[in-house]
Amino acid sequence: MRPRARVDCPWIAGGTMRSFVFRGPGEVGVVEKPIPRPGPNDAVVLTTAAMVCTSDVHTVRGAIPVRSGVTLGHEAVGTVHALGSAVEGIRVGERVAASGVTPCFQCEFCQRGLSSQCGGRMLGGAKFTVQVDGNLAQYFLVNNAQANLAPIPDALSDHQALYATDMLSTGFVAAEHAELDFGHTVAIFAQGAVGLSATIGCGLRGAGLIIAVESLPERAELARHFGADVVVDHTRCDPVARILELTDGQGVDAAIEALGTPATWEATLRVTKPGGRVSNVGYHGEVSEPLTIPLEAFGYGMSDKQVYGGLNRGGRERLRRIFRLMENGRVDPTRMTTHEFGFDEIERAFSMMAERADGIIKPLIHFG
Amino acid sequence: MRPRARVDCPWIAGGTMRSFVFRGPGEVGVVEKPIPRPGPNDAVVLTTAAMVCTSDVHTVRGAIPVRSGVTLGHEAVGTVHALGSAVEGIRVGERVAASGVTPCFQCEFCQRGLSSQCGGRMLGGAKFTVQVDGNLAQYFLVNNAQANLAPIPDALSDHQALYATDMLSTGFVAAEHAELDFGHTVAIFAQGAVGLSATIGCGLRGAGLIIAVESLPERAELARHFGADVVVDHTRCDPVARILELTDGQGVDAAIEALGTPATWEATLRVTKPGGRVSNVGYHGEVSEPLTIPLEAFGYGMSDKQVYGGLNRGGRERLRRIFRLMENGRVDPTRMTTHEFGFDEIERAFSMMAERADGIIKPLIHFG
Amino acid sequence: MRPRARVDCPWIAGGTMRSFVFRGPGEVGVVEKPIPRPGPNDAVVLTTAAMVCTSDVHTVRGAIPVRSGVTLGHEAVGTVHALGSAVEGIRVGERVAASGVTPCFQCEFCQRGLSSQCGGRMLGGAKFTVQVDGNLAQYFLVNNAQANLAPIPDALSDHQALYATDMLSTGFVAAEHAELDFGHTVAIFAQGAVGLSATIGCGLRGAGLIIAVESLPERAELARHFGADVVVDHTRCDPVARILELTDGQGVDAAIEALGTPATWEATLRVTKPGGRVSNVGYHGEVSEPLTIPLEAFGYGMSDKQVYGGLNRGGRERLRRIFRLMENGRVDPTRMTTHEFGFDEIERAFSMMAERADGIIKPLIHFG
Amino acid sequence: MRPRARVDCPWIAGGTMRSFVFRGPGEVGVVEKPIPRPGPNDAVVLTTAAMVCTSDVHTVRGAIPVRSGVTLGHEAVGTVHALGSAVEGIRVGERVAASGVTPCFQCEFCQRGLSSQCGGRMLGGAKFTVQVDGNLAQYFLVNNAQANLAPIPDALSDHQALYATDMLSTGFVAAEHAELDFGHTVAIFAQGAVGLSATIGCGLRGAGLIIAVESLPERAELARHFGADVVVDHTRCDPVARILELTDGQGVDAAIEALGTPATWEATLRVTKPGGRVSNVGYHGEVSEPLTIPLEAFGYGMSDKQVYGGLNRGGRERLRRIFRLMENGRVDPTRMTTHEFGFDEIERAFSMMAERADGIIKPLIHFG
Repeated sequence: MRPRARVDCPWIAGGTMRSFVFRGPGEVGVVEKPIPRPGPNDAVVLTTAAMVCTSDVHTVRGAIPVRSGVTLGHEAVGTVHALGSAVEGIRVGERVAASGVTPCFQCEFCQRGLSSQCGGRMLGGAKFTVQVDGNLAQYFLVNNAQANLAPIPDALSDHQALYATDMLSTGFVAAEHAELDFGHTVAIFAQGAVGLSATIGCGLRGAGLIIAVESLPERAELARHFGADVVVDHTRCDPVARILELTDGQGVDAAIEALGTPATWEATLRVTKPGGRVSNVGYHGEVSEPLTIPLEAFGYGMSDKQVYGGLNRGGRERLRRIFRLMENGRVDPTRMTTHEFGFDEIERAFSMMAERADGIIKPLIHFG
Repeated sequence: MRPRARVDCPWIAGGTMRSFVFRGPGEVGVVEKPIPRPGPNDAVVLTTAAMVCTSDVHTVRGAIPVRSGVTLGHEAVGTVHALGSAVEGIRVGERVAASGVTPCFQCEFCQRGLSSQCGGRMLGGAKFTVQVDGNLAQYFLVNNAQANLAPIPDALSDHQALYATDMLSTGFVAAEHAELDFGHTVAIFAQGAVGLSATIGCGLRGAGLIIAVESLPERAELARHFGADVVVDHTRCDPVARILELTDGQGVDAAIEALGTPATWEATLRVTKPGGRVSNVGYHGEVSEPLTIPLEAFGYGMSDKQVYGGLNRGGRERLRRIFRLMENGRVDPTRMTTHEFGFDEIERAFSMMAERADGIIKPLIHFG
Repeated sequence: MRPRARVDCPWIAGGTMRSFVFRGPGEVGVVEKPIPRPGPNDAVVLTTAAMVCTSDVHTVRGAIPVRSGVTLGHEAVGTVHALGSAVEGIRVGERVAASGVTPCFQCEFCQRGLSSQCGGRMLGGAKFTVQVDGNLAQYFLVNNAQANLAPIPDALSDHQALYATDMLSTGFVAAEHAELDFGHTVAIFAQGAVGLSATIGCGLRGAGLIIAVESLPERAELARHFGADVVVDHTRCDPVARILELTDGQGVDAAIEALGTPATWEATLRVTKPGGRVSNVGYHGEVSEPLTIPLEAFGYGMSDKQVYGGLNRGGRERLRRIFRLMENGRVDPTRMTTHEFGFDEIERAFSMMAERADGIIKPLIHFG
Repeated sequence: MRPRARVDCPWIAGGTMRSFVFRGPGEVGVVEKPIPRPGPNDAVVLTTAAMVCTSDVHTVRGAIPVRSGVTLGHEAVGTVHALGSAVEGIRVGERVAASGVTPCFQCEFCQRGLSSQCGGRMLGGAKFTVQVDGNLAQYFLVNNAQANLAPIPDALSDHQALYATDMLSTGFVAAEHAELDFGHTVAIFAQGAVGLSATIGCGLRGAGLIIAVESLPERAELARHFGADVVVDHTRCDPVARILELTDGQGVDAAIEALGTPATWEATLRVTKPGGRVSNVGYHGEVSEPLTIPLEAFGYGMSDKQVYGGLNRGGRERLRRIFRLMENGRVDPTRMTTHEFGFDEIERAFSMMAERADGIIKPLIHFG
């Protein structure tokens, strides 16, 4: 059923592919769709491996509004199946990754470095699923392919490369916005895959003390493996009080929110020093109340605290830098992968993610 | 009564001076206090001119907790009356200004450039009135004088120099945290003296479009004089809608909050583009509810918006840079001064500020 | 001869146009060439006005190696004549400008913000004349048009818009790399059109003291008009000694080299304070010796001085910010235009630029 | 002879101490000097351990001009012996370190963060030996002690703490000025103690590929231990060609000069990409010719390369951040220590450093 021959004449390709789609609030399924055909600047990739993201769960729950029938997913790698006529520097058959964020790199926001907000649309760089079909499918189309596809080095497995598409890239954004200097202190709230990646990222920016907040023992152990010096279990103590205690009452230089709840958000403001930074990468779309900034912790507006709410900026250049860290053995995130599935089991993989079943962190999806 | 001779042997000075003090919530008065004596790193300045600040009003209302009997004021200039034994590079008799923020410049926060948060105490650089006596008095003591006193250039009047101590310095902080590039768009909420100074500051950073929000006609006129391209009257339209309209629906690159109300705070988040910056210099101590961040305007945490809440960083170096701008005719803020008083009229000056009477913006206080 | 109808089907256009070309070292001329046809991401612009740049003179002298027959010029505006199939957001007939630097905005250098060095090729963003035909021609092709073409606001003349393509953009780069804070001191060596634009730029970044170095009286007068506080005539004094004197022996916070000679280069290092910045925008291709860094002025490598050698980064976003400054009356560079010509007089305009005849600074070229 | 009792009444202390001094070009020796007495802001430290630095060798050779009889050394730790009357937050008897750079933190340069250039004097923060007695002595005086002394955490040995005073702090400056992003490539020229520390620093900033240039096998091995991915032996190949080859012809994102020779300096410019950064921490005082910038490698002034020549910024805050990295096991530099001596053997330790005898990198000096 699935055409395995690679063609570089997309207009004669045709055929269909299986796609994992959003059917409506709470409902997903696998459907057949035509294999996409690339426009002049696009590429079509034959998927070899993918991962499910918590964002897919948010989407299906309705927290990120998308159209019914859209393909889910934004973490996938594969080989180039077809290329648009204007794409240079990439070959059909090449093993490639696309970031979960695929900006146009042409607009004024991209030109300013704000590719995450491509086109001036909030979160506009996040195109998969939100604006166009995602990549939990046998093939996927990548816009502005020359800017967005990165060749996967031979030394890296598909499994490793997948982490560069979203988890590491997003965790590293969190660390970048924390603006750490050598030896700074940082607290990271929640150690799911993004939080763990932020832990890795803070270590790679020279943090002197990394405090992770997490209650699940498996995640706490991973946090230590990836560089946390202390793990605070917020079910056993007040994490704000504990973090102040661990920092001689001063608070941390930076706090990272990697969960997306009002409680963790407020905690980040309370545990940072005057002049400290709050770096948010948690998605706050599942609540309806606005976020709050406690006045005293914010110095009534004059604490010189800085709050960032960030998104992965995507693009080939960023992918290649993350690949290089893995190639030279500085990072190996694959211990975050707790489960593996074939693409024919995608519905089960998704429901386990939705239910947080069996201690799942990241499920790896193989395409046959 | 007032000793006019300058002595450089402070241990033999003695004598008393009149000081304008906080007596308790809502109550102020003039009292006699001993003329201060400098420790090794201090200086005592004979006051020649001063200004009353809205912060003094906040303090008297109880929004900034201080001890009863403390001297108010933090905007003053004068001549050096006495110097501590370890102070170098300053002469008795020299005409000087001290910033309203007088950090120690020794602690770890100051060493990191966070002198506004001196000692790791929230707003810790703001010592006058909050931690020690202020300078609405005939003499005032300046801690860490070598770092905090700046000679006033001959070309500048006391009147001009006063603006460097707080208004321009704070307005410029607002502009600095807005991180404008050439031609950026900025909206500034409220055009009191700090907002007007922010308007000046944004012009000096190369803003391409400055939108001021202000309803009082005199302030609107001053806003235009100081560089605003458009003044939006929020009593006649929805300022958020109007600012979006003025920017083709995109919003501004940066928004400045120079008032300190929940409504203006929220508006700054709503009028900024994705990836934009909110720079707060309004004091939010007169409300009891936490500040709120509207979810959609914040991209559910992923808009790449950055929120800063800042305070003047103080110090001699900053004063000298602001003096230079006035010396070379790039800035003349004195049109903000709407009223003049002798120090014997200080209570009336203060009550006019508290009541916002007669269109008062800044009152200049002469010391006989 | 010249097709005036706008066509959006470039494959049926055809026809020829007059182009001003490099024939070989020291030789230029006007030739007929085919009107270019756009690829999928290109646009073809019908030229309405242009300027000659000193870089064109460098090129013809052989300092920038280019192929014989290539069209000169990189400062032009016009109306869109034809668009590639993949270009969005621009209409045929629209009045537009392209920067003198037209990066791809797809490559890894562009994604990092280094669009001036597009493709990792030194000065790789500078495509006109160096890599492809320039735009001193009746029509010109713009690569990656969606990223590089900016609509010219109605309020701006072609004459004004031309200054955004290179002079202001390059002068502003010089000011950006000077990293001025409010009230900083800066010295700018040479007040040709780029140096004058740097003077404008430093004023717009809040410089507190701008010292221009220039000996020609007309340029000195323009320097003052555009914001210089002092003009030092290096033919009448040692400019290094004079600048140190003007800054109490300290030197300036930043120095800008806008000429491209070994003497001015070295002077920038000598007049900057420890910790100061040297920002070079002069082209040093007409000498054969390496540039030198005087050891003592560089603190033997430990002065914390920073040396940047920069190039205009190009692109639509930058153009639009500069346009906004002109629209709101903050900048009017047209006084730099000393001469006007029709395109049929281009050879005379060029030879006046080459010979610096009649006090020429910038010649405006009208296309009939 | 040596008073071991700690006194906090310095005016009654008295006594003498042994000091290792510069006697004139090429000559050193041990002399008796009075134990220093602290002014109001000073501290006197009883030395417990120290290190000899290559800068001491430069000084004795005459490359850094100092007065005859001055005490050498700037890397020492000990316990507080006496404190000035105005010093707060430090106790007599406390175990402390002072950075090799001890700025005043009061002047305008320090207030701007340029404490390395304290007072606007080139390298002005480097006071030991250059401006005042150094600390290769039984006691040493620390100016502005409150800002410059950092308590040594119990978990750290004197040996470890010594590395924070200069080697790690200087190597980290090199890495800071390299401005690395995640996964960037960097080349570090020379792997003496500063170069090795830069290697550690680049790893801690998330470099993706670290290329060290070094020919001595022991240093090459240490380079690998501290994080270098590749070590290039410049005696066996052209290091510029080799580095270009290792980076697919592109060059590195940043190059660090940690030696101080014209050849390594030029090489840093040649191996960096367009838009790359050159970070110099080598001292170029032993040559007489100016440094040169090869024109082509500098893009004739328009390559967007940035050259920094930096110095350790000193201060308590920086020391504490480096201590934290050692406390939490992220850095252990003590493998750089190749030799140990008693202070009575200081002349032999120094002559081994001067002659680079026996593979010496850093000698640890114990005080009885």
